[in-house]
Amino acid sequence: MTSRRRSVDDLAGRRIMAERVSALGVGILTAAGAPRPAAAVQVEQLVEADLRGRPSHGMQRLPTLAERIRNGVLDPAAVPCVAGARGAAIVIGGGFGFGPVAARAAVAELRRVARAAGVAVAAIQAAGHLGMLAPYLEDLAADGLVGLGFATSEALVHPAGGRTPLVGTNPIAIAVPARPHPFVLDMSTAAISAGEVIARADRRARLPCGRAVDAGGRPTTDPVSALRGAISPFGGPKGYGLGLGIELVVAALTGCALGTRVRGTLDVECRSTKGDVLVAADPAWFGSTVGDEQLGAYLDEVRNSPTAPGVERILIPGDRMRAERERRIELGIPYPRAVWARLLALELATRAGTDG
Amino acid sequence: MTSRRRSVDDLAGRRIMAERVSALGVGILTAAGAPRPAAAVQVEQLVEADLRGRPSHGMQRLPTLAERIRNGVLDPAAVPCVAGARGAAIVIGGGFGFGPVAARAAVAELRRVARAAGVAVAAIQAAGHLGMLAPYLEDLAADGLVGLGFATSEALVHPAGGRTPLVGTNPIAIAVPARPHPFVLDMSTAAISAGEVIARADRRARLPCGRAVDAGGRPTTDPVSALRGAISPFGGPKGYGLGLGIELVVAALTGCALGTRVRGTLDVECRSTKGDVLVAADPAWFGSTVGDEQLGAYLDEVRNSPTAPGVERILIPGDRMRAERERRIELGIPYPRAVWARLLALELATRAGTDG
Repeated sequence: MTSRRRSVDDLAGRRIMAERVSALGVGILTAAGAPRPAAAVQVEQLVEADLRGRPSHGMQRLPTLAERIRNGVLDPAAVPCVAGARGAAIVIGGGFGFGPVAARAAVAELRRVARAAGVAVAAIQAAGHLGMLAPYLEDLAADGLVGLGFATSEALVHPAGGRTPLVGTNPIAIAVPARPHPFVLDMSTAAISAGEVIARADRRARLPCGRAVDAGGRPTTDPVSALRGAISPFGGPKGYGLGLGIELVVAALTGCALGTRVRGTLDVECRSTKGDVLVAADPAWFGSTVGDEQLGAYLDEVRNSPTAPGVERILIPGDRMRAERERRIELGIPYPRAVWARLLALELATRAGTDG
Repeated sequence: MTSRRRSVDDLAGRRIMAERVSALGVGILTAAGAPRPAAAVQVEQLVEADLRGRPSHGMQRLPTLAERIRNGVLDPAAVPCVAGARGAAIVIGGGFGFGPVAARAAVAELRRVARAAGVAVAAIQAAGHLGMLAPYLEDLAADGLVGLGFATSEALVHPAGGRTPLVGTNPIAIAVPARPHPFVLDMSTAAISAGEVIARADRRARLPCGRAVDAGGRPTTDPVSALRGAISPFGGPKGYGLGLGIELVVAALTGCALGTRVRGTLDVECRSTKGDVLVAADPAWFGSTVGDEQLGAYLDEVRNSPTAPGVERILIPGDRMRAERERRIELGIPYPRAVWARLLALELATRAGTDG
């Protein structure tokens, strides 16, 4: 890419190529004190989210990470500690470092233990935000393993019938080897992301129905009222039950905080107190006769089944993300002007700091 | 209970005490050729569902089980085979017998292996319908273990954007030790049960919105149209993704059938081709410092948080079932007249057969 082309892209807030984004991110984090390999793992995970069209888990979080480092609540040089890896139970202590660095250590252990014992569960604590769970589980699935992932996060979701944010947006992820691509589901148990509520408040847009309640617990489509109230669980009482179940499973296995005591992924003052649980199982150990070929054929059967009126095509979770990823690798990532401007400003400040 | 009291209850279709229901069920299944211990395990699981107010998994399924035995597609004397219990992977072959008998064998193995290795996963295949997953997981939680459960079932649910039933009603269950009761979530990924659609069709009642589509894929509240169409996943695309993920995880680990090839829980002609996966993890192996005391305190915090307008109290999954169970143990189970009449007729035929 010529420097002229790049600067035009940058200034117009147009698409930015992933390599440029990565270089910028690694530059900012290393300037903030992160060792280059750790910074690269963290930034790769942010860029992956942006490539997949999930900006809530993308580079817009980088300024927060940099500030967390400066405030001493995130140790960018932390080396994950694989403690108590006995039997099929893996305990990863993140040392309050980057989440993706801890998660990558967990994935390596999961792979090893699942191969040796058929099954492995990793409990990750004292680690920063992992970002999307999909990339970790995809790697397990690419290795022929079935993967499950659960994580907790700041309490933003009200209980069914309630109005106080007491449950995290707690994602669940599932990956299964299949042809030609592994199946990968990675979804929050909240009806909408906090980032989306804020974005709609900024541009004075309404929320879709059923996504949030106001401070009085009444359903609202006004994002400003929603910010004073709480986000709703997806799918009513069932989604609430699922999110709550994840909150408990993760706390029971990682020893992390619960509900409103979860901190350290959105703020810049607190150490991370959330937890993550990853599970891997090796179908070969179960003697299963259903392989990725049959699973892929079934997924194609679903994809090719008749659609409802007005629906063009049936999607399998991951289909849209995979297509978007390919497109963005080729054409670049379309950042909102404000997000990219903030990243450029950080980069500039970094360079000034380095030069000075 | 006097015989006069019993017969009045029976004839009026009023509440029936659980012991009476159990005796009737065991009588019918043993007459159909089941060994008494296996019949007792199967019937206990059906009665448990009725005690908890989940008739779709209760005694209304008994006539189907008896007919499946008569048709030779369910072997009531099958002894579950614990094959390949290596590492932390447990493979249970049900021998096409009662699901609960296989599930109880799985729970015993899960307990043993999770204690020995921290984690265990059981893949159950060639077993009948397990019934509710909650009772199995509750037993694990009562033992201090975290439990997860996934099961597949006949394809009744359409993909998001589709109209053909291609995904099972695939439940997910989560149990976590907590004071004073373990947390137990046990929910289908369908928006409504097939039994409820049929019941509403029978009494000419409408369905709530968003529960089903007609054969053309249009949302419908007419249960008769829904029966020609498909049940919707709960919670839109997310619930669909979750149900589909369960379909794949269970097939990948158990080798069971997928989609429309799943048979043998609703019909009386086919051997069971679905699968079940149960997971147990021992928090003690993970060195977690969050115990059932803290988890219980958090659940109380959620229960006691402010309600939305018009809501009396906030419930934790399992609260309503637990209360209903206590009530029904004391007062008896209120069976619809037709269900109880059918069971009594089966009992009568059984006695006639035994006498003759």
